[in-house]
This record gives sequence, C-alpha cells and structure tokens, in this order.
Amino acid sequence: MKLGAIEAGGTKFICGIGDEDGKVMERISIPTTTPDETIGQVLEFFRSKEINAMGIGSFGPVDLDKNSDTYGYITSTPKPHWAQCNLVGEIQKHIQVPVAFDTDVNAAALGEMEWGAAKGLDSCIYMTVGTGIGVGAITEGKLLHGLTHPEMGHILVRRHPEDSFAGNCPYHRDCLEGMAAGPALEKRWGQKGIELADRPEVWELQAYYLAQALVNYILILSPKKMVIGGGVMKQEHLFPMVRQQVISQLNGYVQRSQLTEDNIENYIVPPALGDNAGLCGALALAKTLKS
Amino acid sequence: MKLGAIEAGGTKFICGIGDEDGKVMERISIPTTTPDETIGQVLEFFRSKEINAMGIGSFGPVDLDKNSDTYGYITSTPKPHWAQCNLVGEIQKHIQVPVAFDTDVNAAALGEMEWGAAKGLDSCIYMTVGTGIGVGAITEGKLLHGLTHPEMGHILVRRHPEDSFAGNCPYHRDCLEGMAAGPALEKRWGQKGIELADRPEVWELQAYYLAQALVNYILILSPKKMVIGGGVMKQEHLFPMVRQQVISQLNGYVQRSQLTEDNIENYIVPPALGDNAGLCGALALAKTLKS
Repeated sequence: MKLGAIEAGGTKFICGIGDEDGKVMERISIPTTTPDETIGQVLEFFRSKEINAMGIGSFGPVDLDKNSDTYGYITSTPKPHWAQCNLVGEIQKHIQVPVAFDTDVNAAALGEMEWGAAKGLDSCIYMTVGTGIGVGAITEGKLLHGLTHPEMGHILVRRHPEDSFAGNCPYHRDCLEGMAAGPALEKRWGQKGIELADRPEVWELQAYYLAQALVNYILILSPKKMVIGGGVMKQEHLFPMVRQQVISQLNGYVQRSQLTEDNIENYIVPPALGDNAGLCGALALAKTLKS
Repeated sequence: MKLGAIEAGGTKFICGIGDEDGKVMERISIPTTTPDETIGQVLEFFRSKEINAMGIGSFGPVDLDKNSDTYGYITSTPKPHWAQCNLVGEIQKHIQVPVAFDTDVNAAALGEMEWGAAKGLDSCIYMTVGTGIGVGAITEGKLLHGLTHPEMGHILVRRHPEDSFAGNCPYHRDCLEGMAAGPALEKRWGQKGIELADRPEVWELQAYYLAQALVNYILILSPKKMVIGGGVMKQEHLFPMVRQQVISQLNGYVQRSQLTEDNIENYIVPPALGDNAGLCGALALAKTLKS
C-alpha cells in the first residue's frame, strides 16, 4: 500500500510517499506562501504517484468535526491568506483517495506511538516548542478530540517570581505559549534562543515554564510517555533541567516509577522519529484509513 | 439484572442496589471508620441481595492497573487506617460477582454520561469541590486513565494578585486543591463556606481559581460538558461567576458556541443526578461489566 503524507506547517509543507511501516520513500519541502500556490505545488507532487490513501497533519486551528460545513478547513489562523482555507477539500478535489486529517501535533503523537518513542503504549503526548507551542495527545489508544482539538499550548501558567516579561500571546498575554515559545524567548532576552545557549538563567526559566505545563498535563492526562520536540528543544541541555523541575514541582504526589530520578529520562524524551515525526505522523494517519 | 453499587467516600460509604437504567431500589449510608468495620457493614448490606455485578467508585488514590499486585487497593491516602487497603479484594472474598472499580469521580462522570447532564455525549468531566477537589473524565467515549488515574485537583494555578493565603495542600501548598477546596476556604476566611454565603469577595476569589482550572481542562481535554458538584458548589451563585470567569480567561481563543455568553450555562452545569451522581456512577460502572 502506497501512502501519501502531508505535514502542513506555517513555514513549509512537507509532502512524502511512504508505506505502512513508516518508511518514507520520497519527500519534498514546499514553502508556505498562499493556499493557491502552495496547494498547487502539493498537487503537482502527488500527481501520478498513485497513492491509496493520504494523511494530513496541519497547523491550526483546524475543523475536525466531520458533521461541520467547514470540516477539513484551517479556520481562524492569523497567518495571512490561510484563514478559512479548505485544505482537505482542495486536495480531495484533485486526488480521489480517502484522506485522514488532524492537527500536526496529534499526527506526530500518533507517529511516535506507531513507530517511535511511545511504541507499544496506549497513551502519550507530543509537544512541540518552536514558533508556537502545540501539543497532541493519545488517551486510551485514541487521538484526543472533544469539543474541538486540544489547545494545550495556551494553558495558564504561574509566572516565575523573578520574571517581569509581559508575555506575547495576543489572546492571553502570559499563557504558556506567551511565556515560553521561541518568539517569547527572543523578545524577553533580546536574542534568539540559539544565541543564548550558554546563559543558564535563560534555560532555568524556560525549564520552569515547560515543566509546569508538563506537570499539569501529567495531573490531567496521565500520559504514559511525554515526547517533546520543536526548534527550542534542540537545546538538549533543556531536557535534564525540565525533568528535574517536573520531579520537584510534582513533589512526590504521583507515585509511579516513571516519575522518579532514576527513570524520568525515559519518560520525558525527544521524538524518536526526530525531524520526521510530523511526516511519519501524517503517514500514521493515512494508515488508520486501512481499518 | 440486579446491580450493586458502592460510593466509597472518606466520610461515608453509600451502598445501593439498582438496575441498568440507573434506578436505585435501595440505599444505605455507612460511616467510614476502619476498613474492618466499614467493609464489614458493606458486606452485611449486600448479603443475600443476589446481585449480578458490582461497581465501586472510591476515594483515592487507588490502583487501577489490573496487572499490578495491588490492583483494587486504596493506596497512599493520608486517611488513617485506609492506606494500602485492599478494598476490591476484601469485597470479592465474600461476594463472588464481577467488580468494576474506579475513582469516585470517574464513576460519577460515567453516571452523568449514562443518565445525567452529559447524556448522549462522548466526553465530559465531573469535578467535585468539597473536602478535596477531584475530577473524573471521559474522552472519546472512555474513562480516562493512563500512567494512573488523573489527579486534576492538584494542578498548579496562578495565585490571585490580592490573595495572600499560603495554601494548604501538604504536597504542593498552593495548587488548586490547596487554594480552593473547602478546607482552604475555611482556613483563608476563618469560617466555613456556608457561613460566608453573603460575602461576594469570597466567591469572586473562589470563582477565579475554579475557572482557571476549568480553562486549563478545556484547553487540555476539550470536554463536551463540564459537570461540577460537591459541597462547595451548593453555593449556587458560584456557577454564574465561574462561567463568567471562564469566558473572560479564555478570551475568545476557543471558538465554539458552547463557550459563548448565550450557551455557557448549558456547558458548565451542576450534576443532573444531584447527590446520586456518585452512587449512579457506581451503577454505571457495574453496567459496563455486562458487555
């Protein structure tokens, strides 16, 4: 079975052809400009590829309600040209195969469960910390949806007592994304994260906010694995700091071996699929159409 | 089919006999003293009742992992005599029927979905605000479990700028339960909640913390209904205040009709099963054993 996969991001669309084992045979990266132009190039790539099914993991917010008139749309994004874009519809107009559609982070969570860090488990979260903060989740073996898809990047966090940065989320100002996404880092410290690598105070603060979010995800979702990727997490020294803060903030309340000093490095982990997490996630979505 | 139900609480055990339609034919309340005494009286009640299955919703933390040696135990509770109590085992020793076991709040969530405020939906949360704060959840049609059962009452919240109360959670001090459960109310204001009914500043603050928790639950779980019960919520004027705060704290970020001024009173609601939510929840658990 030949599967098509699209990781639809705000900067680029990554398209690929793969199989049910998560093997990617071919891939291409297309800049995200206007829907006409970008989707046009996507269609060009898939033309004559003879795929059997397609998975799309997209930046959001997206409409995932199959009973809705705008199912398959990117909805209220501030990204110019893309609000109310009928992404699934435009693709299905030209490629007549079944399409599975979800958020980029839900797709990545599914990919990590199928072939990556959460293999064999029935729950996990996948968090990306980059231009924004997004989180996808699997609970009881299923991708988590409800009223809409989760928007966990915007949870309310308590401010670090020594942090006077106002926060830059246009909706909530100092929510998690407003305090800890890449642009918040840059605005607070006046330099990009990558240029701040040797300043421990930057990463202590960053770990404080990320850990606080993870603690709340643990208390609410109780996932069996937490996978964290995205540009900001390329600062690998962040991982041990975040793990330490999670243990200290939980303060022994949840008594599971995964949450101990000895084991937490196998609980809070980078994506096993690395930069392929998103594309493989879209493949994993396509694979769900088989059953 | 005759179903047995136990709502095992820290103050009392409510036992009942009911049917698959949630109808309770008989009920009894037994004070929670020592396991020997209390469970002895529970067994006495069920003797000769000839039930076909039993559901137990219990105060926690409990071990719900069927592969664990301590499955069915109340585990690390600070409640004297009850830590490491083999609740399910003791009952099954004497009553040879299948037993479904979960937290009291997960049971109540299931009851509200089966026969109450969340009927017909595939997701909801049930929150109780009383001596402690507990929350159960259903996502994608299933009771939410993971590494363990959720412990959402202990999420970290941001302090109200005018609130100097230190918080009284022994683990986290100023987590949600430490700031907003009944004992926190009493300690902060020097009187029981019921005696503070006419002091608006008490409930403004209370609504602030509860709404903050609900906002984070919405962003993380995206439930289709939020049911809130427990002693503190008997102050019915709290509901409109909490709803208002939820709208204001979300600030339009999640665009669903349920979260608008016009509809939120049907989204954040008291239990339709009232004080029977726990017992009916245990019945609903028992009912799951049928399939």
